[in-house]
Formats: sequence, structure tokens, C-alpha cells
Amino acid sequence: MAGLRRYQRYAEELTALIRSGEMAPGTRLPSVREASRSRRISPATVFEAFYLLQARGLIESRPRSGFFVRSAPQAAPVRATSTAPRSRAVAVSDLVFEVLEATRRPGVAPLGSAFPGVDLFPLKQLARALNTGMRQLEPARIVEDLPPGNERLRRQIALRYALSGTRVAPDEIVITNGAMEALTLSLQAVTQPGDAVVVESPCFYAALQALERLRLKVVEIPCDPRHGLDLAALRMALHRQDVKACWLMPSFQNPTGASMPEARRRELLALLESHEVPLVEDDVYAELYYGAHPPSPAKAFDSRGLVMHCSSFSKCLAPGYRVGWVAAGRYAQAITRAKVMTTLSTAVPSQQALAEYLAHGGYERHLRKLRRTLARQHEIAARMAARYFPAGTQLSSPEGGYFLWVQFPQGVDTLQMHREALERGINIAPGQIFSATRAFGNCLRLNFGHPRDARFEPALKVIGELAAAALRP
Amino acid sequence: MAGLRRYQRYAEELTALIRSGEMAPGTRLPSVREASRSRRISPATVFEAFYLLQARGLIESRPRSGFFVRSAPQAAPVRATSTAPRSRAVAVSDLVFEVLEATRRPGVAPLGSAFPGVDLFPLKQLARALNTGMRQLEPARIVEDLPPGNERLRRQIALRYALSGTRVAPDEIVITNGAMEALTLSLQAVTQPGDAVVVESPCFYAALQALERLRLKVVEIPCDPRHGLDLAALRMALHRQDVKACWLMPSFQNPTGASMPEARRRELLALLESHEVPLVEDDVYAELYYGAHPPSPAKAFDSRGLVMHCSSFSKCLAPGYRVGWVAAGRYAQAITRAKVMTTLSTAVPSQQALAEYLAHGGYERHLRKLRRTLARQHEIAARMAARYFPAGTQLSSPEGGYFLWVQFPQGVDTLQMHREALERGINIAPGQIFSATRAFGNCLRLNFGHPRDARFEPALKVIGELAAAALRP
Repeated sequence: MAGLRRYQRYAEELTALIRSGEMAPGTRLPSVREASRSRRISPATVFEAFYLLQARGLIESRPRSGFFVRSAPQAAPVRATSTAPRSRAVAVSDLVFEVLEATRRPGVAPLGSAFPGVDLFPLKQLARALNTGMRQLEPARIVEDLPPGNERLRRQIALRYALSGTRVAPDEIVITNGAMEALTLSLQAVTQPGDAVVVESPCFYAALQALERLRLKVVEIPCDPRHGLDLAALRMALHRQDVKACWLMPSFQNPTGASMPEARRRELLALLESHEVPLVEDDVYAELYYGAHPPSPAKAFDSRGLVMHCSSFSKCLAPGYRVGWVAAGRYAQAITRAKVMTTLSTAVPSQQALAEYLAHGGYERHLRKLRRTLARQHEIAARMAARYFPAGTQLSSPEGGYFLWVQFPQGVDTLQMHREALERGINIAPGQIFSATRAFGNCLRLNFGHPRDARFEPALKVIGELAAAALRP
Repeated sequence: MAGLRRYQRYAEELTALIRSGEMAPGTRLPSVREASRSRRISPATVFEAFYLLQARGLIESRPRSGFFVRSAPQAAPVRATSTAPRSRAVAVSDLVFEVLEATRRPGVAPLGSAFPGVDLFPLKQLARALNTGMRQLEPARIVEDLPPGNERLRRQIALRYALSGTRVAPDEIVITNGAMEALTLSLQAVTQPGDAVVVESPCFYAALQALERLRLKVVEIPCDPRHGLDLAALRMALHRQDVKACWLMPSFQNPTGASMPEARRRELLALLESHEVPLVEDDVYAELYYGAHPPSPAKAFDSRGLVMHCSSFSKCLAPGYRVGWVAAGRYAQAITRAKVMTTLSTAVPSQQALAEYLAHGGYERHLRKLRRTLARQHEIAARMAARYFPAGTQLSSPEGGYFLWVQFPQGVDTLQMHREALERGINIAPGQIFSATRAFGNCLRLNFGHPRDARFEPALKVIGELAAAALRP
């Protein structure tokens, strides 16, 4: 635990005790004064540690009694899992655009943004790779790099899969205009208008928009901020209705940050295989893990080519270059053709830049630094949230990415908060845009991926004040 | 007529006489010997001139009688115009891919290609503009250049409209991933699955593929290689059925090369306005005119915002950069949002390169040279086609672009020819891929936009031989 500050070390010790069960649910923690004396640390440090544990959902504060280990140590899914969700039409796109377009005003604090800070990316090295790549380009390739795309780049991507233990052949990789195109082409490859598609609840709003645009029906399956998708509910949904595809994020889910444990990923794949249901796997945060190793994508357990694993360089290396891909299994040819028919091909300069950078640019070094930065930012954000948000607020505890999922006590309306915050120069992503049911009205997704943005702490303070005001009787 | 060769000058004189009516349909031309004597030019030169007129569809050879002015001086549309075409489902995509994918083998002569030769483009200057553009890029813009896209680029594009006399505001321009994305997003903005859409017959195969993919029905309206769309047939179609959109190429139509005269464009717009039918105008060859002035796009006559004018830099400046746009009239916001939902945004490096090149790169100089080259190539190709193709073959006479539409006598099957030619290392685009009805089985589209490709003339000779062999009794 070298490099951790004192309060962090204390919090880690307590976390280990709670997670191992040595401190059982319901156990009362020492008082701040007791802990301060016995550990020879200041009361402020103890407080910081307790706040952090509270932010992680591990302990809770009971008025006039102190802190206790929580029985449900994470933010609970909002909806019950005992009934199989029904499919429904989607009509959320207008609300999403209303929120997103309002937040594109210059100067607002980007707490609702979908991107991390641009200063986290090696833009100069990329521009050099772009220049080198274009100098090396044989002219004929400017019209010949049609889908599936630049071969050197596809080999580099296949190599990265191999390094993380997932077998993907370059032949099944189709380069796309960012992950968004990969996801929508994948979805279209296996659905027709009117079909039902499973998503997590809450889920990335763009998945809902894609379903709405393609006139698909949605089946929302609860997603727990710690373990991810509720497999029992999924099993029931697959059993009871004709689901044509799932669009899921097993790693660092947007917006909850949830990651499914590996055993549950295997179980997911077995379930999908038994129903012959293809999976569109959105894995755009794959490289942004805080731990020592990346989680294996669901694709790693796919023996039948049912998984279309979609990712991109937009969130981990090269925003704006618009280079994504899908490792498309049995759907590779269909997606290649669909790509030709919709956008023809992906920009050659961008593909050249990425191929060159991946070969020579120091990608691993950049990623290590980026992961460290985001992990540190997560700690800072969780601590600040614990300090400024009202009692009873629950936070997710992501192991990668740059989003916190915040669940305020009932009574807070984050869509209303979004409007009020915007007036004060702060942009947040209210919970309602992450579900076709308009649930999660007391939740918000908090982007903490802007470490050099001094507006972050004051903005959290404002959000906390707005939440507290909403809770006042 | 300075700069023309002797046979060309003679052919131009005769063309003027025929077009003015001084040489009426049915008039017999002088014999080669007579013309050679009276004009003091060699018989070979007279022959060249007559071949050129024949290729233009202005004269015809009658066995043992000599050459006569044709009564129908252009390739006639294949289908009659007296009945209103019915809408039908489209199932052409597999055939198109079979043809296109076969022709991507390395080393084949690219007569069926959709692109002109890459050596016609200022790739080095573009790479410099790319480098400069990326150096000047303010980092935040890498994530902020969301649709509608780079503002500087949109202003440059609006300026080019203004220079050619068409009023388009930067605000209605949406930057896309090439024209293909502009076209498909435009089509989707105004249709739902099952709707009927008008296209030309023959038309660009990608339009048919887009309709098939979106489960739209097609109404094919004959397109005459000289005057373009048959407005009487369109009028009937709009009167008799509920058409939701037209996807048309008024200028240098792909594949026929047809251009509608300005009066007919006005008439087209009046007709569409009276039925409130939006027009997706595919104008990707707009800059490739041979004459002194560009034709005005249909968009120029659009007073109600019904025209979505789609174009790109891929055919005239920067293939592979994937920068296109749509000037979308009243549909600009819908298309902006659809773009966000499908591919999010267009590659920033490509947008920067184009914005920089248009401002400082010498675009006009490049275009003047490119237009001269293509016009010269057209003459060469028409002459060679006249020399090598069997009697009775009709050629279009485009005034821009780089395609000849070749109509062989009945009996030639160009799909069969495509397979035979491919075995001999030649790629052609058979007529069947340009219609959902599988008409045009004796036609092909000939790309003459590779002036430095020495395989062109031998390939035409082979095609002529294959056609002649098919016609042998």
C-alpha cells in the first residue's frame, strides 16, 4: 500500500476486513475518537477514511449511533428482479438530445460529459504518427482501404486481444467509424424492426437511442453497480420472450461502472448460447482498468462466434480520430457489407495514424499512466462526493473507467437538478436518460475524468447543495 | 476549337450541323472518300471523326450504304416511359457485392471501378494540409467537433456554394463520413420501412443497396443518357402512388453520365414541391464538369428546404479522407441527430485537413487541371470504344465525370462478360447491378478516369472482342 495516504491506508485495511467477512454486516465501527487514539491518527484522518468507506457503499452512518458495516454493501438496483421485464417501445431520444445539447455550451463544468479530459491523451505523439503514417502510405491504398479496413491496424488490434488472452483473428475484425458505428452495425446485423433487444438498466443512453431509431423494442434487465447484469432476470426474459440480441457492457458499465465477475461472464455466455442469442458487447472502457489485469471480455468465452465485441480508441487514446472496430465472429461478412453500404470506409489518415502509433508510439506507457490517473481521480471523486453529498447518498465503486453512479435519497429529481446546475455552469447526466422507463430519477452519472479541471470540487459542492435543498421538508 | 486534333475538329463541325438541325435525321453523310477529297484530310481521319459521332449516338452506320444522321441521336432509355412504374422490393445487394468483391483482386484493370485514378489527386498537398491542420488544432476541439461538424470547413463549403450561385447557409450543412453517409442519413430522415422511393433507371447501385437495407420499395423512373430523368414518368408515378422521397443525380448521373438541362431541373423542383416530396440529391461529381461552368444543382431551385444536397471531396480531391456533407434544408437538425446516433462524428484529422486545404491549398488550380484531364480522357475513351466495340453499340456522351454508359446490341450479356473479363484481368461494372429489375443486361458502365493506366486500350479491345463473340450467330 505504498504511495497511499494515511486515511487511504486505514480505509484499505477496513475494506479488507469487511470484504473478508471479519467485520460482519451490522458490526459497529469504532468511534472516531476511539480510532484516533488507538491508531494514533488525527480524527480528521479517521473521518476521511470513514467517508471513503461510505462512498464505497461498505458502511453507513446511523444518526447518533455511529458507523456500521452495511448489510447490502452497494447501491441496490432500483427495480426488483423477481419479475421478467417486458419489452417496450423506446422514446427517450428527444430527452437525451435536450440534455446533451444543452451541455455543449462552452465553459460548463463537464461532469455530465461522456469523455475524459483531452489533456490525458498523447495528442502530439498521435499527430506525429499521423504524419509518419501518411508519408508511408502507398497512394493506391487511399482508395483501397475498404472494409474490413487497414490490415496492419487489424493485426495490431488482434495482437492486443492475444496479449490479454482473448483469441480473435484479424479476419473477423472490421474497422469502423468509432465504437458507435461498430455497435449500431452489429445491432442491425441481427435484428429487424419490431424485434426485442435486451439492455442493462440503467444503460448507456446511446443504446436506447439506437433501439429507438431502429424501431426495436427494449427489454431492460437490472444491472447492479457491483456485479452487473442480473442473470436470473435475464434467464427469465430469454425464457419468456423472443429476444433477438443483447447489447451489454460487462466491463465498467456505463453509467454504473459495474463489472461482472468472470464466473458470471461465463454463465452469461452459456445462457446466450443455449438460446442462440447474439451479444453486442460494448467494451469501450476495456483499457481503463485500475487493477493489475484487465477483465476478460465476454468475447473470451464465446466458442460459437455469437459475440460482436465492439471497442474503439476514442476513450483510451485518440478521441476525434474516429477509429473503432468490431470483432464480429460469425457476423463479420454481414457487418463488412453493411459498413460499405452506410459509410463506405473509415478515414484512411486516422487508420494510418493508429496503425503507426500502436506499432511505435508507446501505447503501453501511455495506458499505464492513464490508468493510474483515473484510479487516483476515482478516490478523490469518491471522497469529495462523500463530503458534499447528503447522508443516504449511495455511490458505485467502479474498478475502471471514469464514471461514478450516484444514487441520491428519494426526493431528489436529477432532471430538475440538471437544469438548475446548468444555470450555475455545471453539466450533469441525469439518471432518466439511462432508461426507457424514465426510472433512476434520483440518480446521476458523474464524470471524474478531468483531473486538471479546478471546477470539479466546487461543482460537486453545488450538486450536493442542490440535492440537500431538494430533500428539505 | 484550338487544341483539338484534326479528326476532332471535323467531328465538332458535323456535331454542330446535326444538333442545329441543318443535317436532319436520315441525312446521308458524305462517303469517307468524298469527305477525304473535299476536306483534304486522310481517310483515316475521316473515319476517326465518324467513329466519334457514332460513339456519341449522332450517326449510325447502315451496312453497304454508309453513315446516316440518327433519328434518335442518343442511346434510348431501355424501358418505355408510357406506363407509370410500380414500386417493388429490392433484392440486388448480393449481386452487387458478388461483382464488387470479385473486382477488388489486385492487378485488375479498373474499368468497373467507382473511383478515378489516385494519381489525379494532390495527395502530397493534402498530407501537408493535414499536418498543418493538426498542428493548429486546439486540443479541446478533438472532442468538441461534434455534428454538424467543423465550423471552418462548413463555412468553406458554404462559400463554394455561393461561388457557384447556390445559396446555402453554413447552418444547414452537416459534415458526414463521405457522401455515402450523407445519402443514407438523408434517406432515413424522410422514410420508414415499407415506403416507396423514386430512383433513376439505371441508377447508382449503392442507392438500390441502401433501399434494400432500409426495407424501402423502389420506383424506377427511366433516365435518358442525354437529358436525364423522364419527368413525364415521374409525374405519373407521383400522381398514382404515395412516394416518400426521390434519390436522384441530376448532374453527371451514375452510371449514364446524363445531366438534366436547367429548365428540367426547375420543372423537377416544381413537381416535387407540388407533391411535398423531398429530394435526396446525389451530386458527388458536381466539380467534374468539362464545360466552362458547373450545372446548377437542383438545390439551387429549392425554395422550400425540400432538397438534401449531398456531396463529398472523395471524387474530386481527397479519396480516403471520408469527408462529405449534406446541405439539408429543413432536415438539418434531424440529420445532425441521426449522425450522432450512428457514427457520432466525422474524423477530426480529415476535417482539419480539408478545412486547411480549401483555405490555402490551391483547390481551383487542381480542379481546372482535373476537369481538363477527364474531358480529354472522355474523348480518348469514346474514340477507342468506337474503334473496338461492335457496330450497333451506343455510347453516352457525358459532359462531366468519368463514366461512359455503353449499350451493346441485344445479345450481349454483360454479367457473363464481367466473369469472362475478370478471368482476363479486367474489371467491368455490368448493367444489371444498376437496376432492381435486372434490366440493362446488355449495358455496362465504363470508368475512363485512369489516364495513366496502359491497360485501358487493350482492355477495351478485349471487351469489344467478348461482345462481338457474344453476337456471333
